Amino acid sequence: MLQGLTSAGLGQLESGVQLIELASKYEFQCVDIDARDLVERLGRETAIELLQTRKIEIGAIGLPVEWRGSNEQFLSGLEQLPSAAAAASALGCSRCCTYILPSTDAPSAHFMALATTRLRACASILGAYGIRLGLEFVGPHHLRTQWKNPFIWTVQETLDWIDAIGEPNVGLLYDAYHWYTNEMTVADIKQLQAQQIVHVHINDAKDIPIQNVLDNDRLYPGEGIIDLPGFLQALNEIGYAGPVTQEILMPYTPTGTPEELVAKSRQAFNNVFGAAGL
Amino acid sequence: MLQGLTSAGLGQLESGVQLIELASKYEFQCVDIDARDLVERLGRETAIELLQTRKIEIGAIGLPVEWRGSNEQFLSGLEQLPSAAAAASALGCSRCCTYILPSTDAPSAHFMALATTRLRACASILGAYGIRLGLEFVGPHHLRTQWKNPFIWTVQETLDWIDAIGEPNVGLLYDAYHWYTNEMTVADIKQLQAQQIVHVHINDAKDIPIQNVLDNDRLYPGEGIIDLPGFLQALNEIGYAGPVTQEILMPYTPTGTPEELVAKSRQAFNNVFGAAGL
Amino acid sequence: MLQGLTSAGLGQLESGVQLIELASKYEFQCVDIDARDLVERLGRETAIELLQTRKIEIGAIGLPVEWRGSNEQFLSGLEQLPSAAAAASALGCSRCCTYILPSTDAPSAHFMALATTRLRACASILGAYGIRLGLEFVGPHHLRTQWKNPFIWTVQETLDWIDAIGEPNVGLLYDAYHWYTNEMTVADIKQLQAQQIVHVHINDAKDIPIQNVLDNDRLYPGEGIIDLPGFLQALNEIGYAGPVTQEILMPYTPTGTPEELVAKSRQAFNNVFGAAGL
Amino acid sequence: MLQGLTSAGLGQLESGVQLIELASKYEFQCVDIDARDLVERLGRETAIELLQTRKIEIGAIGLPVEWRGSNEQFLSGLEQLPSAAAAASALGCSRCCTYILPSTDAPSAHFMALATTRLRACASILGAYGIRLGLEFVGPHHLRTQWKNPFIWTVQETLDWIDAIGEPNVGLLYDAYHWYTNEMTVADIKQLQAQQIVHVHINDAKDIPIQNVLDNDRLYPGEGIIDLPGFLQALNEIGYAGPVTQEILMPYTPTGTPEELVAKSRQAFNNVFGAAGL
Repeated sequence: MLQGLTSAGLGQLESGVQLIELASKYEFQCVDIDARDLVERLGRETAIELLQTRKIEIGAIGLPVEWRGSNEQFLSGLEQLPSAAAAASALGCSRCCTYILPSTDAPSAHFMALATTRLRACASILGAYGIRLGLEFVGPHHLRTQWKNPFIWTVQETLDWIDAIGEPNVGLLYDAYHWYTNEMTVADIKQLQAQQIVHVHINDAKDIPIQNVLDNDRLYPGEGIIDLPGFLQALNEIGYAGPVTQEILMPYTPTGTPEELVAKSRQAFNNVFGAAGL
Repeated sequence: MLQGLTSAGLGQLESGVQLIELASKYEFQCVDIDARDLVERLGRETAIELLQTRKIEIGAIGLPVEWRGSNEQFLSGLEQLPSAAAAASALGCSRCCTYILPSTDAPSAHFMALATTRLRACASILGAYGIRLGLEFVGPHHLRTQWKNPFIWTVQETLDWIDAIGEPNVGLLYDAYHWYTNEMTVADIKQLQAQQIVHVHINDAKDIPIQNVLDNDRLYPGEGIIDLPGFLQALNEIGYAGPVTQEILMPYTPTGTPEELVAKSRQAFNNVFGAAGL
Repeated sequence: MLQGLTSAGLGQLESGVQLIELASKYEFQCVDIDARDLVERLGRETAIELLQTRKIEIGAIGLPVEWRGSNEQFLSGLEQLPSAAAAASALGCSRCCTYILPSTDAPSAHFMALATTRLRACASILGAYGIRLGLEFVGPHHLRTQWKNPFIWTVQETLDWIDAIGEPNVGLLYDAYHWYTNEMTVADIKQLQAQQIVHVHINDAKDIPIQNVLDNDRLYPGEGIIDLPGFLQALNEIGYAGPVTQEILMPYTPTGTPEELVAKSRQAFNNVFGAAGL
Repeated sequence: MLQGLTSAGLGQLESGVQLIELASKYEFQCVDIDARDLVERLGRETAIELLQTRKIEIGAIGLPVEWRGSNEQFLSGLEQLPSAAAAASALGCSRCCTYILPSTDAPSAHFMALATTRLRACASILGAYGIRLGLEFVGPHHLRTQWKNPFIWTVQETLDWIDAIGEPNVGLLYDAYHWYTNEMTVADIKQLQAQQIVHVHINDAKDIPIQNVLDNDRLYPGEGIIDLPGFLQALNEIGYAGPVTQEILMPYTPTGTPEELVAKSRQAFNNVFGAAGL
């Protein structure tokens, strides 16, 4: 597995370049970053060289398409997707991710039909560039009733949706926080096959009743009560060998410089990977 | 357009053969019937000859797959589908239909995902036999809340679902009763293209408040208040040339012999097609 | 059916605007034109206004993706497709076309597999914008051996390929020249359904042995020996109501100003549509 | 990896039951067998019990659909597929395989289009039962010209075809004999991902010029010159954990009783797996 960072939880980073350099300095192997932005800022050759010299891969880009809103919003994003995919592909990135909100103001069944067609179009474009699409199920209970109608939030629902989308390059983004808030176990992970998982997020949760755990109130790995060693061992056991990327969504900017926070993240990874024997 | 009959509204028919013979005698051009059952009873050659000598086509078969229940139910039906499709195809039938209940006890979004995958498998099999799959949206208001969660019932929702299913051979079963209970107009039909419609049902509704119109309480064409001449004219104008089949769901067996009821249906068709100038 | 023009056969047109204005002046209803180019030159609002005031629709755009070459070429074109589709859609155009060369230097079967995947990706993107993809089978005999290996050139092969692509929005571009060089009849057209045809080209062929008919040596409608009245009647009979667009590929620039050639085209259309009683 | 047997190379087996019992006695973990036939002979419960007590899995069933011939042949086979899939699924089997002849009497490109649609329909049905479809590329040179037109025989062509089929449950059947006759290396295997491989066949080739190696003239593993330890190590290294099944196609019935030949196969497996350190 590749240890990685997103910008979430690292304070006010100046740029993607800073993220790459700090990730490299603290011995991470990948970052989640906007590949097209990097190419536009640095030029393609310089961006490739930066990644190579820093020994950093791009774990995943975010899907630059708003598939949850109006058709106009969707098409406007779709127009951006091929160039985003081309940039990601040029930088060696083969994953693109998006999250699923567990409730919606739209009628659930109709929205599911629309979203299936939309994500199929996205997956089809990404597939042409050799990129997989990871769908992140989102577990925190408060989001299940935040909008009018329930949508989906479990692994099984998401796998069934992946079947409905029907493109070969779609899988799960498996986030430890959503695993925990769905009250799932190590055994649940062991029932999956590695290829069903496109990407992994890691972070930790406060020791409060599970129905009170907020999506935007996460801890660094090892600081909370999620069984992250078990989570990592199970992923390793089924053969998952892709990125495991930290994503600490928080209600405020954390204290410390980005470098201090990356150093703290390094220690957090050492703790949980060490405890997992990995 | 082909004028046709289902068994619904014709009392206690003895057999499919009787339906075919009465339809022929009263100058209908098609019937909706179980093609495989007919082949099994008569043998394939005799069945073909019966249809040819009576100048009756099979408008549509029903989808012999319960896609709304458990996975076991679905697979058990799927196992029957190729032979049903082969029998239909052997008898020259190119349409297979199923209806969509507007509410469900299952979580709506998840059920939509499952049903999309299931109907795609059905459409794929039917397509191999040159058969199209028609999905019937169901409008009566009482069914929208009959089960726990709302599903879909409008034309637009159904068209969006057809996109999500993503097979080229899926379209609408357009039933005048559901058009009426969705409070749609002639202009709504004119916005469609003929190829979006696989099959048409015709019947009439009582003159009561629309929210009280019951699915299982239909009238013969021309006996109620649906604008059936407008309905037929609009279908004709967009170039729809397939079956228009009577389906009178009723809470009790209607009075009269099957032949009397077919004769009554003939008069009903003459009235509404005549009023439409068709 | 809508009578239309492409630029092929009209000499040195100054611009798309000139094509639209001449088409309008000579009572055509549509043109095949690069919608994105028009939007970029005039701005979207002005382009829409031009089309509206001239009562001209855009019949079809060309597929801006080279799907016959390397993967790099394909992806480079794919990157352009959403913006081309968005421009077409903004101008009310719902058709995009590409032609199939009947032979290839690539191994035929492998190329068919690659091209299937590539055109499916194109169709998926176009579908998001409500645009259909028309595939033009190409009949002239000399092209069947121009490259190393035979590919496909008949209607049936193209329909089977459309099935293999498997997207609901793909159909035929039916060109009278390719109908003729495939030695097809009016009866062949009558076996089709209107919705299988996305777009139609019209032009005429010299009275020489059919195996000597060159793709790039076409005549104006009515000047040659193709049964264009029968062709148009058959299309009309099956309910085809889309564009019928002139495309006169020639080995040299024709004599006359664009306006003289458009006037000549108007007379040619009057002749063949008149002879067809349309 | 699971060590397995097909009946090919084991002489005149009396029945599938005998194959299962001998495989069990000689410590194989799986057999390739007709699951539906087993269910029909023994009954479902007895068949399940037999497999459980003998600790034998069914590695793969053969695809009971002739997709290479006429449409009638195809549909006739398709009608059998759901019940074959249901039987396989009931016995815990999740793989179904078919081979690709490297030449064809049909026009190559058109046949590729037809076969794509047909195998997609098969994959769709199999997918409903949780079964993957493995496509076996076939390498021997003599078969590339045995029929009129070349089709496909390389791994890359087969992977591109799998993309064209476009169903998530399709992958490779990787046979050591076809790997060898395609003159591929261990490095070629290492470029694959485990999930691209549905099933593996193992057998050996005579030490003759590669263009003379006949498909139907195979040796037991270790008796020939294929680098089977390298083959197995590479599969293991990329994480392939499915069946590796012996398939010894021969021009004559081998000498010895089935039990003697299974014992010989056990020794052959010990030799090559031992040499691979597995």
